[in-house]
Amino acid sequence: MSGNSLGKLFSVTNFGESHGPAIGAVIDGCPPGLELSEADIQAELDRRRPGTSRHVTQRREPDTVEILSGVFEGVTTGTPIGLLIRNTDARSKDYRNIADTFRPGHADFSYFKKYGIRDPRGGGRSSARLTAPTVAAGAIARKWLAREHGVRIRGYMSQLGPIPIPFETWDEVPRNPFFAPNAAIVPQLEAFMDDLRRAGDSIGARIEVIAQGVPPGWGEPLYDRLDADIAHAMMGLNAVKGVSIGSGFDCVTMRGSEQGDEQGPDGFMSNHAGGVLGGISSGQDLKVSLAVKPTSSIRIERRSINRAGDPVTVQTLGRHDPCVAIRATPIVEALLGIVLMDHALRHRGQCGRGA
Amino acid sequence: MSGNSLGKLFSVTNFGESHGPAIGAVIDGCPPGLELSEADIQAELDRRRPGTSRHVTQRREPDTVEILSGVFEGVTTGTPIGLLIRNTDARSKDYRNIADTFRPGHADFSYFKKYGIRDPRGGGRSSARLTAPTVAAGAIARKWLAREHGVRIRGYMSQLGPIPIPFETWDEVPRNPFFAPNAAIVPQLEAFMDDLRRAGDSIGARIEVIAQGVPPGWGEPLYDRLDADIAHAMMGLNAVKGVSIGSGFDCVTMRGSEQGDEQGPDGFMSNHAGGVLGGISSGQDLKVSLAVKPTSSIRIERRSINRAGDPVTVQTLGRHDPCVAIRATPIVEALLGIVLMDHALRHRGQCGRGA
Amino acid sequence: MSGNSLGKLFSVTNFGESHGPAIGAVIDGCPPGLELSEADIQAELDRRRPGTSRHVTQRREPDTVEILSGVFEGVTTGTPIGLLIRNTDARSKDYRNIADTFRPGHADFSYFKKYGIRDPRGGGRSSARLTAPTVAAGAIARKWLAREHGVRIRGYMSQLGPIPIPFETWDEVPRNPFFAPNAAIVPQLEAFMDDLRRAGDSIGARIEVIAQGVPPGWGEPLYDRLDADIAHAMMGLNAVKGVSIGSGFDCVTMRGSEQGDEQGPDGFMSNHAGGVLGGISSGQDLKVSLAVKPTSSIRIERRSINRAGDPVTVQTLGRHDPCVAIRATPIVEALLGIVLMDHALRHRGQCGRGA
Amino acid sequence: MSGNSLGKLFSVTNFGESHGPAIGAVIDGCPPGLELSEADIQAELDRRRPGTSRHVTQRREPDTVEILSGVFEGVTTGTPIGLLIRNTDARSKDYRNIADTFRPGHADFSYFKKYGIRDPRGGGRSSARLTAPTVAAGAIARKWLAREHGVRIRGYMSQLGPIPIPFETWDEVPRNPFFAPNAAIVPQLEAFMDDLRRAGDSIGARIEVIAQGVPPGWGEPLYDRLDADIAHAMMGLNAVKGVSIGSGFDCVTMRGSEQGDEQGPDGFMSNHAGGVLGGISSGQDLKVSLAVKPTSSIRIERRSINRAGDPVTVQTLGRHDPCVAIRATPIVEALLGIVLMDHALRHRGQCGRGA
Repeated sequence: MSGNSLGKLFSVTNFGESHGPAIGAVIDGCPPGLELSEADIQAELDRRRPGTSRHVTQRREPDTVEILSGVFEGVTTGTPIGLLIRNTDARSKDYRNIADTFRPGHADFSYFKKYGIRDPRGGGRSSARLTAPTVAAGAIARKWLAREHGVRIRGYMSQLGPIPIPFETWDEVPRNPFFAPNAAIVPQLEAFMDDLRRAGDSIGARIEVIAQGVPPGWGEPLYDRLDADIAHAMMGLNAVKGVSIGSGFDCVTMRGSEQGDEQGPDGFMSNHAGGVLGGISSGQDLKVSLAVKPTSSIRIERRSINRAGDPVTVQTLGRHDPCVAIRATPIVEALLGIVLMDHALRHRGQCGRGA
Repeated sequence: MSGNSLGKLFSVTNFGESHGPAIGAVIDGCPPGLELSEADIQAELDRRRPGTSRHVTQRREPDTVEILSGVFEGVTTGTPIGLLIRNTDARSKDYRNIADTFRPGHADFSYFKKYGIRDPRGGGRSSARLTAPTVAAGAIARKWLAREHGVRIRGYMSQLGPIPIPFETWDEVPRNPFFAPNAAIVPQLEAFMDDLRRAGDSIGARIEVIAQGVPPGWGEPLYDRLDADIAHAMMGLNAVKGVSIGSGFDCVTMRGSEQGDEQGPDGFMSNHAGGVLGGISSGQDLKVSLAVKPTSSIRIERRSINRAGDPVTVQTLGRHDPCVAIRATPIVEALLGIVLMDHALRHRGQCGRGA
Repeated sequence: MSGNSLGKLFSVTNFGESHGPAIGAVIDGCPPGLELSEADIQAELDRRRPGTSRHVTQRREPDTVEILSGVFEGVTTGTPIGLLIRNTDARSKDYRNIADTFRPGHADFSYFKKYGIRDPRGGGRSSARLTAPTVAAGAIARKWLAREHGVRIRGYMSQLGPIPIPFETWDEVPRNPFFAPNAAIVPQLEAFMDDLRRAGDSIGARIEVIAQGVPPGWGEPLYDRLDADIAHAMMGLNAVKGVSIGSGFDCVTMRGSEQGDEQGPDGFMSNHAGGVLGGISSGQDLKVSLAVKPTSSIRIERRSINRAGDPVTVQTLGRHDPCVAIRATPIVEALLGIVLMDHALRHRGQCGRGA
Repeated sequence: MSGNSLGKLFSVTNFGESHGPAIGAVIDGCPPGLELSEADIQAELDRRRPGTSRHVTQRREPDTVEILSGVFEGVTTGTPIGLLIRNTDARSKDYRNIADTFRPGHADFSYFKKYGIRDPRGGGRSSARLTAPTVAAGAIARKWLAREHGVRIRGYMSQLGPIPIPFETWDEVPRNPFFAPNAAIVPQLEAFMDDLRRAGDSIGARIEVIAQGVPPGWGEPLYDRLDADIAHAMMGLNAVKGVSIGSGFDCVTMRGSEQGDEQGPDGFMSNHAGGVLGGISSGQDLKVSLAVKPTSSIRIERRSINRAGDPVTVQTLGRHDPCVAIRATPIVEALLGIVLMDHALRHRGQCGRGA
């Protein structure tokens, strides 16, 4: 299978460009009998939608999803689920000024080198807009995982640039535009973003995502370990430059007597492993952490080259997220959902009843 | 395809257990016409072999590889390359004492939960021994990449527990058992390891791996980005808990005006991206960093449970690496080679001449 | 990958049901730089469209295709090509009378057994209507194969029920509704079909499809032989019950001294192999033959059961093709195109320029 | 995945050449908990072994299988099963005389065109010897299918060249070297073969294979229909030129009122469908028929070319099966077992307990 499909049994094939007629996905392998409506999917799309606060891109896309197939009388049939989202606010003219140059840190250079073709309309295929179909597919996975296994997947921002965001409560996450689990810090985040926007710059951030209720036994070592497939899905998201599980990079300085989670009759006594042992879920909370780089499209003038290789300066106007990580939380939840669902089905296929 | 294969066109299928009759791999999709002998592979196997210093497991495995197929008169034929490595120093009795208990932080718990079967012989399938066939497959990929594209892949240890290892020179890497690029620090590393061994404990570490000469254009976004597939391969390696590309987790605190690599007629002016833009290689050095957790099998007594769920204490004797990361460098080089080769072929398949 | 995708590098994912909102496909892996417009695809769709003669279903579907992605300024970009065909003439009420019973020889029984769900609208997913996206994808493959390799793919009907149709000329094929390569026999075919339609019955047929210009070297034995993948694609088409290559079932009675094609400096002296030797194209014409069963939906009353397992009689009214094979020719040409293109890219990936 | 793997969840990767050191397979995805010994596999290998009668090749290969992994204490562990068969009777010198020429009808021409490499030792990778690992893998599948679902797979020869072999009884099949279900006809078959051998020629044949006990619901339409995957597996077998299901090519002349199997409360009243409706098993017997071409390696002198393209005559001495179909029955049973098992697991993965 070519590179725009994610998952082996629960398989999501994504298509579309930022400023083409439409984007969408085909989800193949969904079990039959799952109650599913457009509203189930729309709720998740609305969480990642642009234009919902002054801290994200002002592009106004309703991102209305249409289910084209795979659902009959409100229930999945087991056949492929076609999802369609029309692009409505595509202002290609915004991108004319960059059609012949390459933005520093942007995919337009490497896409051109690969394909010999340049689609400058809003980043074309490399746009973060293409995460919308992923979110839609993830909504289906998450609904099934919740119903069949009681799995709950939630993410939050744990750091915005230099500002760590201490975890206080899940309740706060949906109440602010940053998905920050901490009400007290929100004014500081807003002030930081306002300054940044005025400066025409962008910033990185860190996102955590956790799945609770994952039963032990999911994952296929050697190579398709659960954590390996999670890393694949997460590193495949725009702007992600690092992925870690459990104690992650902190384990570099840890001793085995500290890092290895002890266990008693009542369960594990710590969770440095982050819910995965040897590539297979252990039954503990699955804990994933992501580093998201700052947006490359910024107003500040930067040095680059044009197609001819001549030096130019580039300043990206248009409408961009100054911190792509702000809208990343629903996406990483969706990605984790897709990976878990795929492995749930794979485990059930091989090992039967255990699933 | 089930989970023990890595790569779509250059595809490595791994089999074996630590203390079974043999381990090995089948490499399918290798281009014909590559000069290949067992010596090419053996050289890489010898770099990861146990028992080469007092700082690694004392298991004495010659790890002699036999090419069973796919090579005729010293040249690959394009048909599957079967590789066989017999296990010779398998002391199953060392593991009898742990057959009924689960080591904290070890995969034996999750494997048992998944399969309902317990193979306690040296960790069975979850043993780091199974990285040997990966190294063997990687040797083939690296030879082809070097010949066809001049790609050079090298790794080193950049931190051992609390001790950062500043990069001095590649020349030093093969001269010490740690793959440390710095002669001056080796005595400190040795002293640290001697203390650790006496304490019966283990330690984490950090490994860097770099590929030079990768042409721009490899990688298949959306989902099978080059960095995504690298993350998959690396996180699929035993004990790896974190993977990052380029500036990695440092990009959390960086601004776009700093992180986005500027470009001039003579090339890029920095490499925060780590050689990948939008999931496609940019032509810069590919830079990957890994967090490796401490070995879970330690002599220090720890709390766990047995199969019946009763509390027990576990002390792992046998022969174990106190720092699995010490032997990880040749493995991560191999993994990077496999991923790059797979994408080289995939790119050539889709885009033709560009490869 | 789940079961609704065809091809590994040139990969077609199909979605939709006969009477849902839309049907379509995502084509992933298409090389960049191919000139492509909706007209290229529409021409092939029009060849298989229903309602073009009295001998096929009278459903009137314009089958208008919309390209949603993957094409920019008239040229493929190398990213997924999303194709959408809206269903417009969906009369679900026609199917109400069969919603609770199973038509003899029809997939509604096995679909219900598999998924536990019944979508009776026009056969749902099992409808021959779902071949339209396949035809659309095949049009892309055929255009690329023609441009890159001069491959030409053409099919014709060689037998309609008891009437063999001797091959006279390709020129005649597009001039009659049967894709018959023989003008003289057309009146006989029409008379046969008129009688059949009056009788409320259906009939089988045989289709030949030939690819000229295929270079030697395509196919991946052992298992993914070129002929094996052709057989997979063809047997995957509705109503096909037999597939053969070259001399096919005639070779049962042949001796090796007759069946093995001799070769001279000017090429092969016969083509019993049908263009494939050992699963790899030989450079000769690729010759495939198919047996297509009669439509199961007929007006004649037949014995069956309902969901409860009780005996019923079934008479299918609605609009059906009395000989599905009549519209099969463009579809089998498309399928052959998809398989050949996939193998062209796979061969180029592994073996390089030879492609 | 490259082309030497068969199956998505139950996945068989085959390696080896006829006259290399060894052949074998890795079976990935086998459920844990299946009792398995080398004897289980050996029994099937012995059925296809050469040298068991004067009517097959006189090569004397013990074909002794060694299980390298995936089985612990007599039970599958769920990890990959490595199988090894050493080549012992490899007389490469027999092939020297053909190393520079191409046998009419043989794969050596197309392999050379594909890979640019020539391994003339016994046909190298294209040898029918490579069906041994397939048979070994099939033995595992068949054991699991029998245990879990009571599936029984049996094949027989239904025609040898011009001699139809009427089905009398399964009991007779193992009692003669032809797998003929009819004792009375055996002397005629023997006489025919003796004449043929004296003439230095070869002959085609027809094989039937039937699976009983397959539950309804296996298969993944659109493309990965059960019959499509069967056709893929069967057409992927050396010398097979045609595959049909149920009434097969006879359905060309059948009417729908005859071909569509009626159903009553006690089940289907006929089986023209051959156990598959719409690509999904119906619960009826699965019936597959194969056309096997005559061996291309014959003693009779034939015209061909050498590598330089010059005309030559070719006469193949060495040891060859004058009718490869004679040993094909155990192989096609194995192939059917592998496909069914893969779909059993895939169905269980998607649809759960129904499997």
